This record gives sequence, structure tokens and C-alpha cells, in this order.
Amino acid sequence: MSDEFSRIERYFAPLAGVEGLGLKDDAAVLQPPPGREIVLTVDQMIEDVHFLAHDAPDFIARKLLRRNLSDLAAMGAQPLGYLLTTALPQSVSDEWLRLFAKGLQADQQEFGCKLFGGDSSSSRNAISLTATFIGHVAPGTALRRDRARPGDEIWVTGTIGDAALGLRARRGLLQDVSQFLTLRSLLPTPRLGLPLANIANAAIDISDGLLQDLGHICRASGVDAMISSQLVPVSKQVAIFGDTMLQARLTEGDDYELLLAVPPEKADALIAACAKLQITKIGVFKSGTGQVEVQDAAGKILQFSKPGWTHF
Amino acid sequence: MSDEFSRIERYFAPLAGVEGLGLKDDAAVLQPPPGREIVLTVDQMIEDVHFLAHDAPDFIARKLLRRNLSDLAAMGAQPLGYLLTTALPQSVSDEWLRLFAKGLQADQQEFGCKLFGGDSSSSRNAISLTATFIGHVAPGTALRRDRARPGDEIWVTGTIGDAALGLRARRGLLQDVSQFLTLRSLLPTPRLGLPLANIANAAIDISDGLLQDLGHICRASGVDAMISSQLVPVSKQVAIFGDTMLQARLTEGDDYELLLAVPPEKADALIAACAKLQITKIGVFKSGTGQVEVQDAAGKILQFSKPGWTHF
Repeated sequence: MSDEFSRIERYFAPLAGVEGLGLKDDAAVLQPPPGREIVLTVDQMIEDVHFLAHDAPDFIARKLLRRNLSDLAAMGAQPLGYLLTTALPQSVSDEWLRLFAKGLQADQQEFGCKLFGGDSSSSRNAISLTATFIGHVAPGTALRRDRARPGDEIWVTGTIGDAALGLRARRGLLQDVSQFLTLRSLLPTPRLGLPLANIANAAIDISDGLLQDLGHICRASGVDAMISSQLVPVSKQVAIFGDTMLQARLTEGDDYELLLAVPPEKADALIAACAKLQITKIGVFKSGTGQVEVQDAAGKILQFSKPGWTHF
Repeated sequence: MSDEFSRIERYFAPLAGVEGLGLKDDAAVLQPPPGREIVLTVDQMIEDVHFLAHDAPDFIARKLLRRNLSDLAAMGAQPLGYLLTTALPQSVSDEWLRLFAKGLQADQQEFGCKLFGGDSSSSRNAISLTATFIGHVAPGTALRRDRARPGDEIWVTGTIGDAALGLRARRGLLQDVSQFLTLRSLLPTPRLGLPLANIANAAIDISDGLLQDLGHICRASGVDAMISSQLVPVSKQVAIFGDTMLQARLTEGDDYELLLAVPPEKADALIAACAKLQITKIGVFKSGTGQVEVQDAAGKILQFSKPGWTHF
């Protein structure tokens, strides 16, 4: 493996925006977009926790960016660029890095952002990666988790549960002939660019599991949520498993769809704002103390052993 | 160990600024300081690479912040706040976290910054930490590495080599009765707040070793550097080792002093700007191609086996 500074020069410097000063300085310098608020988020991906050792490096890179971009999407923000840290065991090859950088490049182009800086280190064991994203939003329009109100409807973008089943496919536990589920797990689509500022009262991206992330909104907003399990939208690839996968769909994360609190009178505006995207009403917020209730088709309350992904 | 969300609530939420939205949202939102440029930097600390497993958690926290604050200092920037990521093995106790958060709190107060957000994860083996700092600077005044000019003098703040010997003391390889060297290694002082904008042409903080960091300025600026080993300032605790530790002093990092390129006519202004701080001229930049030359007292050129710390 080539040394730290050669690697930065060869693989990462070509990805840098002018703000990154050629990745040769102590920090990045940028002019904030005039009249905008700054939005900052950071996410990490660690080998054997967030990805599997044999995953393709370009997909690891793209998922690292997309998980962060999804956080910006959940704030209603647009991306500017990011800082990257890598901690790599000596076993990581130059070819791995070349592919990793190729993945970053692909998503920088797809989502319109540049590398602003970072830090590289060695690691004894696992690969450890972080990306810190900087984005921007019109002042006062950031979509928060704590503004859902009783009576708001609960909407989700896209389909839920694909990534949970995709992870099983990647582990060889189920068949995925079309590779749709696998791709949804490896390469989620951040729902950037939806004009939700005057439509949604609250938003979160579904990273830890629908029920857990809905619970975050409920607790932050001081409301209860009631959803119907039969309304939660599924892809046709997930539908064939029926309710056998219901718990996985509702409590495992990684779909990176948006979960929104929308007043009923804004429903038409929401559908128009999401013109190119499936958007589905799955329930309603009620006054309460942060509880999430799931009903089946018969109105029976369903219980799950845990709401979602937690570290420890 | 308590679960992820309890830990955030108990240990980290009290450290958050309003920008952090209670650490309960997808991202931080901040109003950039009017008329200022934004400065962004990230550094990581990994167990067995950047710190020792038995180091005190509050010192690990403070060094994580200080390494980043030193990068801001090297840009002439002032800190606003930071994002934190933690990846912790299950063996890490609540008491470890309590002390770690206490260290963050102490340095937030000392340096005037707040926690804006972050991400927490589990880890299979080593503790892995990153901090991303956001700071600000008057437009166009950021101190860069690539603006040193032939004829500029080379100045350093403080004393050089304390941390290199401090690390040996921490490993039991030398005696440090006063604990001065140990403390310089565990708890460096970022040289924030020096009004260097119209004085220094270029700056870097000494994190990888004096010769290597000087080399970074030389290559970025397209100049050579000539320093005299006898001029490099040492503390009295280092002086007693004489030249036996010369290579360690010049090629090992972690001092987090500033290395500056200053035109001769600005020397008086520099000394005034650093009124409370030792500041020493150690050499001069010349026209060249990025080389660093070290002379001893007799004018003989010294050779070192490697200029500084590199990952791999």
C-alpha cells in the first residue's frame, strides 16, 4: 500500500472542491451561501457494523455519502460538500482505495457535492469511515423532528423494508434474483430536493427502523402515533413474503426513506411536491406522550420485541 | 453499559449548543456569523494509534478537541462548535463515558465552543473517535500553507519536542518527575487567538513532526527551508537530554505549536502579536523546490532517517 500522502494526492485530491485547498492545508475554507442557514451532519460506517468486509468499495463509499445526504434530505437541506475520515488497516490495497474513490466520485456527480477535506489514519483491525456533510437551507425552514402536531398525518416516501430483506439476501438468507433488494440495501436513494418546507411539520429519515424513527418524532414532539401495518408501502419484491417479514420491515432500518408529519389540508400539496415519487399515508399523530401504536387490518394492536436498531 | 439513546441524553445532550437541536434531530442548524468565512476541519483519535488504552478518558476527550482546535489556530480561525462521532466497544463503561464527557465539558468552557451533533456506533475492537470543528475567519485572512515566500523567516511558537519525550515518559521509557512532558503529550495547547492575519504569510501546526510539517509548507509554497537545529527552542525538561533526543524532537509530532512564515519586516509585529507566548526564529525560506535542510551549530547539514509521522 502506498503511503498516506501519496494516497491523498492520487485518490482524494481529484475529488476536492476549491474549498478543500487541494487537501494540503489544515482545514477547508468556504464562503457560506448568502442568506442561508448552514446544516451539518456526520455519520460513520464501520466494518462488520455498517458494512460487510467483502462489500464492493465503491458501494461502501456511496452508501457513506448517501446516509449523510439522507440526513440533509430529512432537514430539507441541499448539500454543499463533505469532510472524510478514513482509518484503514494495512491490509487495505491501493485497488480498494481506487474503487472507493471512484464511488465517491460517482455520487459527488450524482448529488452535486465536493470533498472539502478530511483526515486519514491507520487502524489495527476494522475499516472505519466517517463523512461530515455541510448543507444549506433557507433560514427557519429546516424540517425538524419536534414539530409534529396531533392531527398531522403520517406519510412515507418510497417503499419500506427493502433494505431489511436486502441485507438478508446479501447474507445468503434469501433469494434476490433481480438484485433489487440487494441494491436497495447497498445503495439507498436520499430523498433530496423535495420542496417540503411549507408542507411538512416534521421529518426524519428511516435509518434505524420505521417504528423507532417514528418514535423519535413522537418523543421529540410530545405526541402519539397510530399507524396501520397494512398501509405501510412495500415493493413487489417484498410483498411476496407477506406478513412473515412484517417485523423486519417495520423495525429494521437502512431504507433512508422520509417519514413526514403533514397536516391533512397539505396532503394535496405534498403529493404534488413528491410528483415523481411514491408517497403513502400510513397513519396519524394524536395527542399523547410519545407512544407508537401499530394496528393490523382488523384493528388489533400489534406488539414487537424491539422497535429498531440500537447500538448496545 | 446503558443504551445508545440514554447515553446521548445523559452524557452528551448537556454539552449541546442550541445549534444541536438537543441532539435529537438529523443534523445541526446554524446561522453563519455575518460577514465571515467558514472554516471546517476533522481529526480522529483511534485507540492504540493516537492514544493508549489506559489513558484517562477526560484527557482523550480534551486532546481530541485540542488537535482540531490547533488546526483552526493554524488557519487563524476561531472555533464555533463541533460534531462528535464515537465508536465504542461494549467493554466501555458508563464511568468511562462520564469522564470523557467531563473532559469535553472542560475544554468547551476553556475554548468557547459547543457540541452541535454527532453519531454514535458500536465497535468490535478499538475505540474510535472523531471531531469535526466548524470555525470562522474574516474573509480572505485564513492562514494557508502555500503562501510562504523566499526570504520569509521561519518562526515557531512555544517549545518543540516536549510531546515526543512525553510519549516516552508515558510508556515508562524515561523519567518525568514534574509530569511536564507527560502533560504536554496528553494535553497540548492550541495556539488560538493570535492576531496573525497581516503578519504571517503561511502557517501550519506541528502535528506530524517539525521537519515533515515544514516540508508541507515548502512543497505547497514551492520554496526550500533552511533551519538551524540549535535554534529550535526546547523546554528545560527537554534541554537536559541534549542532542541525544535531537531526531525525536525534530521528527516526532504532537506538540501542536504553530510554524509560521513571516517576512523579516513583520518580525516586530509578530513578537507583539505573541506577547504572552515564547516565539523563536529558527531559519529562513529560500527559493527552491520543496526541500528542508537542517544545519548544526557548525553549519554541517544533518540527515534524518525519516522526517515525521506517516500512517503506513
